[in-house]
Amino acid sequence: MPRSAPARAPITSPAAATVFTTVLTEGPVSRVDVARRTGLSSAAVTKAARPFIEAGYLEELASGGRTAPGAGRPANPLAIRPDREYFVGVKITGDDLIGVVTDLRADVRASAHHALTGHDVGHVVRALADLVGEVLSGDLRERAYCLGVAVSGDVDRSSGVVRYSPFLGWRDVPLAALLEEATGLTVTLENDVKALAVAEQWFGEGVGASSFALVTVGTGIGSALVVGGGLVRGAHGVAGEIGHVPVADGGPPCHCGGRGCVEAIASTEAIVTRARQVTGEPALTMDDAVTRARGGDEPLREVFAAAGHAIGLGLAALVNLFGPERVVVSGEGVATYDLFEEQIRRTFAVQAFGSAARCGLVIRPLPFEEWARGAAAVAIQSLFVAESV
Amino acid sequence: MPRSAPARAPITSPAAATVFTTVLTEGPVSRVDVARRTGLSSAAVTKAARPFIEAGYLEELASGGRTAPGAGRPANPLAIRPDREYFVGVKITGDDLIGVVTDLRADVRASAHHALTGHDVGHVVRALADLVGEVLSGDLRERAYCLGVAVSGDVDRSSGVVRYSPFLGWRDVPLAALLEEATGLTVTLENDVKALAVAEQWFGEGVGASSFALVTVGTGIGSALVVGGGLVRGAHGVAGEIGHVPVADGGPPCHCGGRGCVEAIASTEAIVTRARQVTGEPALTMDDAVTRARGGDEPLREVFAAAGHAIGLGLAALVNLFGPERVVVSGEGVATYDLFEEQIRRTFAVQAFGSAARCGLVIRPLPFEEWARGAAAVAIQSLFVAESV
Repeated sequence: MPRSAPARAPITSPAAATVFTTVLTEGPVSRVDVARRTGLSSAAVTKAARPFIEAGYLEELASGGRTAPGAGRPANPLAIRPDREYFVGVKITGDDLIGVVTDLRADVRASAHHALTGHDVGHVVRALADLVGEVLSGDLRERAYCLGVAVSGDVDRSSGVVRYSPFLGWRDVPLAALLEEATGLTVTLENDVKALAVAEQWFGEGVGASSFALVTVGTGIGSALVVGGGLVRGAHGVAGEIGHVPVADGGPPCHCGGRGCVEAIASTEAIVTRARQVTGEPALTMDDAVTRARGGDEPLREVFAAAGHAIGLGLAALVNLFGPERVVVSGEGVATYDLFEEQIRRTFAVQAFGSAARCGLVIRPLPFEEWARGAAAVAIQSLFVAESV
Repeated sequence: MPRSAPARAPITSPAAATVFTTVLTEGPVSRVDVARRTGLSSAAVTKAARPFIEAGYLEELASGGRTAPGAGRPANPLAIRPDREYFVGVKITGDDLIGVVTDLRADVRASAHHALTGHDVGHVVRALADLVGEVLSGDLRERAYCLGVAVSGDVDRSSGVVRYSPFLGWRDVPLAALLEEATGLTVTLENDVKALAVAEQWFGEGVGASSFALVTVGTGIGSALVVGGGLVRGAHGVAGEIGHVPVADGGPPCHCGGRGCVEAIASTEAIVTRARQVTGEPALTMDDAVTRARGGDEPLREVFAAAGHAIGLGLAALVNLFGPERVVVSGEGVATYDLFEEQIRRTFAVQAFGSAARCGLVIRPLPFEEWARGAAAVAIQSLFVAESV
C-alpha cells in the first residue's frame, strides 16, 4: 500500500534537527531557551523553527500557554504538536509480535499482539504487515509513514539487515526492505535493547543526562550505553554486552564460551538451573521458584540474591569504566525485582569506585509493550538522526 | 617571567581547529583530502588554512613534496611545521619530576629529571619551575608558551585543580594557577592516564581510530577511553577505572573497599604480596620475583600468570562493554610483559564476546618519559580543543 506522503517534518539541516529535537524532548521551551541550550543564535532558532510551524509539527504558545497568533516573540514557548504524525513500533520475539502506534512524543495510542506460529521469514513478514494493518486503524493510518522494528541480536540499522538473531534462527535477513514492500511504510530496524535506550534517551530517564545506560535483565542480559548524546555501537559491532562481563573467575560456564559471565549467573535460565540444583527438583519452574522465594524459602532466596550480586558486580564494572549519570535496570527479569533489588544495590555500593557511586540507579519492571514503544521511538528518531557514534 | 606572545596558532573557529588537527595528526595531506575527511568544502579548507600558513604553523608542499611558492593548488599537500612552537610536558610522581620539551608533533627535543625531596605544594611548584627553566634552554625557550602537567589521581582539567592525589597527599590544590605564576607559561593540568591517551589519540595508535582505550598497568591499574573522538570523563568525575572492575567474586580485598578488583590481583603491590605468600619469603622483592620467574620458578610464574589472567578479564569487560577499535596495554608494570602477555591474550580470547575479539590488542612497555610526553600532548591539544565529552 505505498502512497505519496504529504509535507512532512522538514529536517533540512543540523540546526533544524537540533531545534526540533530540543522542543520534542524538552518542550514547551522558548526560542530564547532553545538558543541558550543549543548554542545557536536566536535568529537561527527562529529560522529553523518556521518550516516546522508551517508544516504543523510545532506550534507557538502564548506566554500564558495558549496558542499565539502572528509571527511570535522570542520568549513565547515552542511546543510539539504530538498528533501531527503517528509512528508504528513492533517488537519481534521468538513467540510473538507486539505492536504499538505512538504519537510524536512516543505516547502509545493503540496496541496489538499476535502470536507467531513460525519463524520462516516470509511468514513473519506477512504476520507483521497484518499486525500493522490492524493497529493502524482509522485516522491513525492517515498520518503514519514510519515503522520501527526491534529484534534482539546482531542488527545492522544502517543497512536494515538482521545479521544474526538466535531466537528466530535468522542470518543476514534484509528485513527492512521486505517490510517496506509489505507495509508501504519507511522502516528502521534496530537491536531491541538499543531501541529501548532510544526511548529512554529521548522520552525517559535519559532526558537531560549527558550519559546513561539502560540494562535489561531477563532471558538475556544486555545494555545500551549513551555517551555524549550518541549510542555506543562498538567498532566491531559489539558494545554494551554487560551480560558477558566476567565477574566470577572460575564461575559457571557461559554459552558464549567464557566462564563466570553475568548472564551465566543471573539470566532466567541460569536462575532456574541453579534453583533446580539447590532444591534437587529437576522440574522446578521459574514461577515456582519465585513463589517459594517470596514465601521465605532461604536456599531459593539465596539463588536470587546471587543473581542480584552478579548484576551488581556487572553494574559496578560498567559504572567504574563509563561513569554514566544514571543507569536504568529493567527487563522482564525485573518483574521479580523484589527478590533482586536489595542485593543489586548492596553489591553496587561496595564495588562502585569513589564518586562513581553517585550514579543514580533506577530499578524497575518493564511492561512488554515498552519494547514496541522503543521501536516506535527509533522510528521517531529516524526523522532527525541519520547515524549515531 | 611572563612575556608578551608573538602571533600564535590562529584558532578562531571549529573549522580552523578541524583543519589544523587533521594536518597535524594525519599530514602531509592535500586540501582535497582534508575536505573529504572533514566534510568541509574545499573553499572552507583553504580559508581555514591560510592564517596558519601566514603564522608559520602550516606550509604547503609542492606535489613532489617540496615547498610550493604562491597561493597553492588544492592538490598540493599541507604539512605541519613542527618547529614553529615547542611545548613543555611534566609528569609529577610521588618521587620525582620528569620533564620534556616537544615540538608540535610531540617529538621529544629535550628532557630532564629531578628527584622530589618533599610533597609540600610550594616545594613542588618551585622544583617544577626549576625543571622547566632547565629543560627550556636556548632557542626552545623562544617559542614555548604552553606547559602540560600530568598527575595521577582526581584532576579537574577545566579548573586546573588537583582534587585528590593519593601519592602526593594533596586535596584541592589549584596547581595550574600556581604554576602559571611560577613559570609564565599557560598551564593545562590533566590526569596522567588521560594525558597518555591524548598522546596516543593524536600521535600514536589512536590516529584514525573511531574509538580506542589505553590501559596502564603498574602501581595502579587505570585506563582512558576515547569514543567518537572524545575522552570519556564520567558524569561524576570517574571513568576508565579498569583497575576496579570486579573480576573475581570473593577474591582478595582491594584498597577501594571492594573485593576481587583487577588492581587487587595485578598491581605491582598485589603481585609482590602474592609472591611472598607462595614462596614463604616475606622480604622477596619484585625484582627477585621477576628474575626467578624468568628463570623458570613455576609457583612464581603462576603468580604473574594470575595477574595476566585478571588483566585479561578486565580487558574483556572493557571491550565487551565499549567495543573499541583497539586497546593499548602499557605502563611500567608491562616492563615484565614477557611474564604476562601470553595469559592476557589467552584470557581475553576466551572472554571477548563474538566479534569484539577482533579488537586489536597492543601490549608494550612504557618508557617513563612517555608520561611527560603525554603531558606535552595535552599542552598541544589545549591550543585547539577546549573540552572533551
